[in-house]
Amino acid sequence: MIEQLTCPFPIRQYPHVLLAHGGGGKLMQQLIEKMFSYAFGPKPVHGLHDSTVLNLPVSKIAFTTDSFVVKPLFFPGGDIGSLAVNGTVNDLAMSGAKPLYLSLGFIIEEGLSMESLWNIVRSIKNAADEAGVTIVTGDTKVVDRGKGDGIFINTSGIGIIEHSLNIAPGFVKSGDAIIISGDVGRHGIAIMASREGLAFETTIQSDCAALNGLVHLIIKSGADVHCMRDLTRGGLASALNEIAQDSGHPIEIEEAKVPVIEEVASACAMMGFDPLYVANEGRFIVIVPDKQCEKVISILKTHPLGQGACRIGSVSDAGRPLVSLKSFIGANRILDMISGEQLPRIC
Amino acid sequence: MIEQLTCPFPIRQYPHVLLAHGGGGKLMQQLIEKMFSYAFGPKPVHGLHDSTVLNLPVSKIAFTTDSFVVKPLFFPGGDIGSLAVNGTVNDLAMSGAKPLYLSLGFIIEEGLSMESLWNIVRSIKNAADEAGVTIVTGDTKVVDRGKGDGIFINTSGIGIIEHSLNIAPGFVKSGDAIIISGDVGRHGIAIMASREGLAFETTIQSDCAALNGLVHLIIKSGADVHCMRDLTRGGLASALNEIAQDSGHPIEIEEAKVPVIEEVASACAMMGFDPLYVANEGRFIVIVPDKQCEKVISILKTHPLGQGACRIGSVSDAGRPLVSLKSFIGANRILDMISGEQLPRIC
Repeated sequence: MIEQLTCPFPIRQYPHVLLAHGGGGKLMQQLIEKMFSYAFGPKPVHGLHDSTVLNLPVSKIAFTTDSFVVKPLFFPGGDIGSLAVNGTVNDLAMSGAKPLYLSLGFIIEEGLSMESLWNIVRSIKNAADEAGVTIVTGDTKVVDRGKGDGIFINTSGIGIIEHSLNIAPGFVKSGDAIIISGDVGRHGIAIMASREGLAFETTIQSDCAALNGLVHLIIKSGADVHCMRDLTRGGLASALNEIAQDSGHPIEIEEAKVPVIEEVASACAMMGFDPLYVANEGRFIVIVPDKQCEKVISILKTHPLGQGACRIGSVSDAGRPLVSLKSFIGANRILDMISGEQLPRIC
Repeated sequence: MIEQLTCPFPIRQYPHVLLAHGGGGKLMQQLIEKMFSYAFGPKPVHGLHDSTVLNLPVSKIAFTTDSFVVKPLFFPGGDIGSLAVNGTVNDLAMSGAKPLYLSLGFIIEEGLSMESLWNIVRSIKNAADEAGVTIVTGDTKVVDRGKGDGIFINTSGIGIIEHSLNIAPGFVKSGDAIIISGDVGRHGIAIMASREGLAFETTIQSDCAALNGLVHLIIKSGADVHCMRDLTRGGLASALNEIAQDSGHPIEIEEAKVPVIEEVASACAMMGFDPLYVANEGRFIVIVPDKQCEKVISILKTHPLGQGACRIGSVSDAGRPLVSLKSFIGANRILDMISGEQLPRIC
């Protein structure tokens, strides 16, 4: 952890990012050496390459990419840096991979304060340490003032697959149980509240977290995982719709079973959102044969991030691949995919 | 090649990108399916994952990332799409890897014309086909109008390393020959001319191209390659300075040997640029033992992209790791690294 360390980059001399910090010259070299290499590790002995050479222990890998444009850059429970690490770690984990390596691409708007950049870099380093991944390659671009928005971050990731499970929507079977790892809606509401300057009685924190530890426990247990999906943009409802469509199976969910904390429920009611569509950054669903459901829930509950794990529904046999929701009052309705999004720039 | 095909996405219905096209809902799904999947290949049989599972033939890989913010998006000789593919392919090739897989992250400004997006997607597909790489995973974000600049693209890439050469600045030895693959300065001048609306007698085209074919020929020949570097941001001068610093060896270059076409030389003189600092996107240097120099040059010349290959200088033994230039008039001067860049947003 570098939480308490001081940045060796001369922030006083350059209090803001300049175009030249992305120009490939001395100023960019100084930024890379005194800030990025300080955080993520020194140059390799034989000099920097444009790419990084890695030796993988296995030949089956997962590869993913994600760009982050969240607004504001800092929010209760996280920031664009921790989000960029956890988002990509989670994408790898959802395919059953063990995340190992991340790349880091910065697109910085000229004028971003160096202090903010350092705080983001530090947050990236801490999140990477916590998730057990290494930043192995990177790139920095600076765009002129008014042509970006503070900073955008791309993280791409490589993970290794050390098991022989087939994990994908296509392997979902009728009768499978759908388990959620915890309550939904925190990330979206935390962002929205901080963006709008809304004050609730308690501050709602984003659930932003790396899920690879939880996934590792499930896979290690030998559970026959058919599918996993993290509940990001579009929330639980969109994830279920994608799985229904890709698997060809209808899905049935009970609204009363989906955990939503009181503060999130009130905030949603106030702002007119449905928590089932609100983005999360540390929640996922796992789909397993019904008879393994209790075992998987108890495994999830052994982890701090899986305390709220529970069964929310099941995969059906016949019919169109839609998601139906049994509401609190017992009525059934179709939980459709929304066309746009409730909250732009949530991640 | 999909050069001549029509896009199945309803461009008339949605002539411009909306925030909802990045929202994780139906509109985003439509964009992915009718434009991106059409160009880059359909969903896998078992449904889309947040990451892609790959089986690699070897366990030693190269991994790199690059974001592209070039302005304008379309320029003589290329566009942001071909640049994003070739830039990342070249970064992999420079470490001696065979590029195989790319990820693609779009950050689109709300309001970008769908026609432009389609032209960029098509250009990406064509450049990937030409370089022999596959787009295997992607991500799309849309930011509000005025918070981006048309489109920014991140490409990360994975290549495999099938030889046992050690290629990095640290392996450069005194006496080594420095070979350049062709004339310098075209990309930067093409961008600048099109940005400023300058008309020269002939239109200068960017040299934007994938170099992995050339690199493959050199490695296949058994040449003892010590280092390679493409001459992007900061141009030849910055590449040489980085290698001198990382290797600890001084480097000596003869100005008269560095190829610059007449049009680029005139444009540089007019605009006050030094072509040695101007960015290229399809040129590189390769450093080999002096006795292999002629052989490597003749190999380069067998490829359309290596017609202008020649020896421009050598690695010295003693002294500070600086780059010295023997000028046209015979004087020696230090070719320093510039602090910023001559041309912002060149790539």
